[in-house]
Amino acid sequence: MLSNRGHTEEIMAKGKLLYAQSGGVTAVINATACAVIETARAAKVPVLAARNGILGALREELIDTTRESRAAVAALRRTPGGAFGSCRYKLKSLEQDRARYERLIEVFRAHDIRWFLYNGGNDSADTALKISRIGRELGYPVDVIGVPKTVDNDLAVTDTCPGFGSVAKYTAVAVAEASLDVESMCATSTKVFILEVMGRHAGWIAAAGGLAARAAGDPPHVILFPEVAFDEAKFLERAKAAVERVGYCTVVASEGLRNAAGEFLAEAGTRDAFGHAQLGGVAPVLAELVKRKLGYKVHWALPDYLQRSARHLASKTDVDQAYAVGKAAVEYALAGRSAVMPVIVRTSDSPYRWKIEPAPLEKIANREKKLPKGFISRDGYGITTAARRYLEPLIRGEDAPKYGKDGLPDYVRLANTPVAKKLASYVIEDR
Amino acid sequence: MLSNRGHTEEIMAKGKLLYAQSGGVTAVINATACAVIETARAAKVPVLAARNGILGALREELIDTTRESRAAVAALRRTPGGAFGSCRYKLKSLEQDRARYERLIEVFRAHDIRWFLYNGGNDSADTALKISRIGRELGYPVDVIGVPKTVDNDLAVTDTCPGFGSVAKYTAVAVAEASLDVESMCATSTKVFILEVMGRHAGWIAAAGGLAARAAGDPPHVILFPEVAFDEAKFLERAKAAVERVGYCTVVASEGLRNAAGEFLAEAGTRDAFGHAQLGGVAPVLAELVKRKLGYKVHWALPDYLQRSARHLASKTDVDQAYAVGKAAVEYALAGRSAVMPVIVRTSDSPYRWKIEPAPLEKIANREKKLPKGFISRDGYGITTAARRYLEPLIRGEDAPKYGKDGLPDYVRLANTPVAKKLASYVIEDR
Repeated sequence: MLSNRGHTEEIMAKGKLLYAQSGGVTAVINATACAVIETARAAKVPVLAARNGILGALREELIDTTRESRAAVAALRRTPGGAFGSCRYKLKSLEQDRARYERLIEVFRAHDIRWFLYNGGNDSADTALKISRIGRELGYPVDVIGVPKTVDNDLAVTDTCPGFGSVAKYTAVAVAEASLDVESMCATSTKVFILEVMGRHAGWIAAAGGLAARAAGDPPHVILFPEVAFDEAKFLERAKAAVERVGYCTVVASEGLRNAAGEFLAEAGTRDAFGHAQLGGVAPVLAELVKRKLGYKVHWALPDYLQRSARHLASKTDVDQAYAVGKAAVEYALAGRSAVMPVIVRTSDSPYRWKIEPAPLEKIANREKKLPKGFISRDGYGITTAARRYLEPLIRGEDAPKYGKDGLPDYVRLANTPVAKKLASYVIEDR
Repeated sequence: MLSNRGHTEEIMAKGKLLYAQSGGVTAVINATACAVIETARAAKVPVLAARNGILGALREELIDTTRESRAAVAALRRTPGGAFGSCRYKLKSLEQDRARYERLIEVFRAHDIRWFLYNGGNDSADTALKISRIGRELGYPVDVIGVPKTVDNDLAVTDTCPGFGSVAKYTAVAVAEASLDVESMCATSTKVFILEVMGRHAGWIAAAGGLAARAAGDPPHVILFPEVAFDEAKFLERAKAAVERVGYCTVVASEGLRNAAGEFLAEAGTRDAFGHAQLGGVAPVLAELVKRKLGYKVHWALPDYLQRSARHLASKTDVDQAYAVGKAAVEYALAGRSAVMPVIVRTSDSPYRWKIEPAPLEKIANREKKLPKGFISRDGYGITTAARRYLEPLIRGEDAPKYGKDGLPDYVRLANTPVAKKLASYVIEDR
């Protein structure tokens, strides 16, 4: 909090930093927010946050984080979800959306925003780059930093994306625990267990499920990647082989699994009694197949948001990296850098070592990092040593939140005090 | 382990204890197994375990737990699943299944089993009672103790069932975490989140989801109990009201939800393109309804076995109680009691105090404890103060397992050394 008038004037001459979250939230995006606020506070720079991401910036719905206590800000590190709200809203090209970009600059100008930190995935990196350009074009000197985040692990350049390591840990632990359960039941009951994981386009999370196997033959016995066209006969053959070998089969299936024709299995045309299309998943489709063709009792799980909100099981590596990119983002901004992203650089696999470096947004915006072919085993249903070498360090370490006496984690809800508007009301019109 | 011959003879004169797990396993049934073995070892009584529960006892597939190291036995306390395997296999009446009961006694006799501990739910309590009777009838003095276990929390007499507290904690934490996620996304994305929980006949677990609410108005906003006939219009009205009030709606839905005609929603006749019935769940049915009638974007999660295998998130109260009933079971057996179950008696709500007492299996076998009507709020969609008073202590405390350097919990796999058979091969024939 600002303590005296002279000091205040000095800070106002320096300007304020605006932070916004974008896209799907993760177990650790608030750890990044925590780092941004703590690092800026140490430099005596006030941080405003946009309510619901870029929409808040457009609507001038800003939050004054200087009003939060030190303890509340520190508690963000262990709180899932997005403390200021996020949104799925992509700004188009400067030509198509010029008015909106100009509006952003107007809001920045009105609130003396000198630095804008945009915390999201590939789309956000693109938006951050565009904003940095239009700022210069309109003569408003805002430095823009893209801050990495995504459970999909598909940002280019950075070795790993904050949010991914925790989903990876969640998935591996879920596979290990559920497998112990099914193994106990398989003699007379459930023989096949299918875990559906996120990953519509890439099998990063599916691959992480493979980490549950500490020795050859351990579950998961079958991983179904979106990169590998679903082959029903081969899948059933493998499931049957596992059941015959060890009594049960654990399957990790990506939500983005597609057949040879390129159609998503999850949209396999299931309809209810009224002919309405079901909002299905891949797991129920696979389960029905196993039951019908192999006659085994099947159970399936679809954790959905539980995968990415499970802060109680976050990876310490992930939390540390989420914090580190937030800290670096502020440091880059205050040093006058713009149009860059603090990326994680892996300097060593074993022991695992990493550092943060700035990378130009131009190299990141609109690019997608795909799962290396060399990470999927030749048969298409498992992960390779190369995949393990990459993935293993990302799930290491625990960072359990504090729990209340009531048995629930102590997650913080910020006061989120709004900043008084200075501009006229703004309606985001349809294009 | 037995250390000297004279000592061995003394023990063999005393006899051995047989332990078997039954029905669905939980996050803490191995904590009970741990207690049984540790308590028996302290009394120098060897423990054999039946591989895959009562089937193992019938097939004379017994495991020698004296061969396990002290550390391995201790590690059972923090390991989910069933260390010796379980089964779903109900023995019928003494008249219908006499041959099988006689076979059990034959196996007990061959291995000098003086005490039989059967760790399961209502069906197991019934079987334990019958075995104690036929033992006396056939002149074989085996003392039989039923040891409580079930995530369904429906055993009569005992205040709570080991396994339930951990599922309750899992459910409440899942609701809290996923709600923070949806709340961040609801401005432009997902507005409704549906969590499907176990409980085909009773809403104990659904009720536990209500513990996520620390203040009035907190999620979950709607709980759908199997005890309350599903009313589509009322459900949609409540979901809409929550979205309009706070921007989003979290729903906890029991897998056993039924409509006014008594039909399970999960079997609502969904079929795929080939007319095959889907192994569906309640959540996808509700999600499709919300999408179609209210137009909101919906996400749904169906954790299935993850709920009951999540030892990483077990309730310390539950672990302690699971251990306590195992310890008491051995103490009762060695004291010569039979046809009883160590039950949890709540002596005080606040502070929460409990103790273990023996209860006759006659009062427990084949009975079912239903969710008290007074636990469901009058409108039918929430829990009452009485429910909270009962449920809150059960999720308190954490008992995190040790984690390996690799980021996975360190769960133990026992050697499970088989005991040499003494009888001829036995085939369990169809009735």
